[in-house]
Amino acid sequence: MKVAIMLFDGITALDAIGPYDVFAATLQWEVKFVAKQKGLVKLDSNMGYLHADYDFSEVTSADILVVPGCSPPHYKTPMNDEETLAWIRRIHETSKWTTSVCNGSLILSAAGLLNGVVATSHWGSFDLLASLGAIPTEERVVRQEKIVTAAGVSSGIDMALQLVAWELGEQMGQAVQLILEYDPKPPFDTGSPQKAPAQLVEQIRAMLQAFAEKEPSM
Amino acid sequence: MKVAIMLFDGITALDAIGPYDVFAATLQWEVKFVAKQKGLVKLDSNMGYLHADYDFSEVTSADILVVPGCSPPHYKTPMNDEETLAWIRRIHETSKWTTSVCNGSLILSAAGLLNGVVATSHWGSFDLLASLGAIPTEERVVRQEKIVTAAGVSSGIDMALQLVAWELGEQMGQAVQLILEYDPKPPFDTGSPQKAPAQLVEQIRAMLQAFAEKEPSM
Repeated sequence: MKVAIMLFDGITALDAIGPYDVFAATLQWEVKFVAKQKGLVKLDSNMGYLHADYDFSEVTSADILVVPGCSPPHYKTPMNDEETLAWIRRIHETSKWTTSVCNGSLILSAAGLLNGVVATSHWGSFDLLASLGAIPTEERVVRQEKIVTAAGVSSGIDMALQLVAWELGEQMGQAVQLILEYDPKPPFDTGSPQKAPAQLVEQIRAMLQAFAEKEPSM
Repeated sequence: MKVAIMLFDGITALDAIGPYDVFAATLQWEVKFVAKQKGLVKLDSNMGYLHADYDFSEVTSADILVVPGCSPPHYKTPMNDEETLAWIRRIHETSKWTTSVCNGSLILSAAGLLNGVVATSHWGSFDLLASLGAIPTEERVVRQEKIVTAAGVSSGIDMALQLVAWELGEQMGQAVQLILEYDPKPPFDTGSPQKAPAQLVEQIRAMLQAFAEKEPSM
């Protein structure tokens, strides 16, 4: 399988690297990091970089497309960039699976791929996802036909393990989970808005909303 | 808090990026990616890069040092590089927490920091860890005084959340977990050698052992 992971300035690194390392652990799949321009891509924290080894012109098809997310408001740049959206549509035409992590689903929506599609996103972006024509649903990994969307940031690991299991069988999924020692023991049980204290959820929601109202500045 | 994450050729990206994104989500901590030479650092898959923004000479102290791991045999290069080990010891003298993810604990051992210390590693490296003088223990996150070691690859996320909670309080730990939507739902229950089928464990162990016997070629 050939996997294309799209990078862009303002990306959340873990959204991309979680799926990447799951796919890499198969020791079979080819993963390419692709961006509008090749070279360094700024992280949303402004404290580091990922690296795009390929530009859009160099990758014209993929078996799996992964569109990661970012801290708000950085998704606005790819959502408003016709070249980026055209590349996503082009790869989608060739893909077996078109996927997103976190609010990467907003970018898929902007590309016109989620109209009427059941999908997820970071929990803080559900209203925006709905306004773009998708049907938000509170599950960690959501699959409708060939479109698979994952919830916030860390959920890309779960999604990628599912994709490995669907393509290569349960035993390979189990093997990859063991190689990555993915036996999570989160210190708290606050990883979703359903589980976290309501006051904390509202506080984070307000913070994310304030970020979302800014203009991207990368 | 100032965090230094050490990079080296052959690194497993998720070992570094899991903790990085946890720390970044505090919106308070400064994270620096540091390597012997600044610039691109090859991933163990040979399918991409991370980027070191600083070289060893530019980072002479840190509140938290993170030494990530790699696919075998790539740890051999930093373990046999006196400049790298000297830098680790130097930062350790200044640190509040000295940490590793996956077989990064082998590198801490090579630096002489784990003699008689209760520590963990990727499950496939326990024998090697013991041979270097540490006392391997089967927990996901192991703390002895200021040394905190995490198990394989994905466990760096759990470790980093603990560090955030220890330093900034439980509420901040909970908030970061919610921001990263870290409510894991692994598709299988095979993430540790205690849980995975014995035959699968032995198969992966043999594969990792065969890798470990090679010479690093990055």
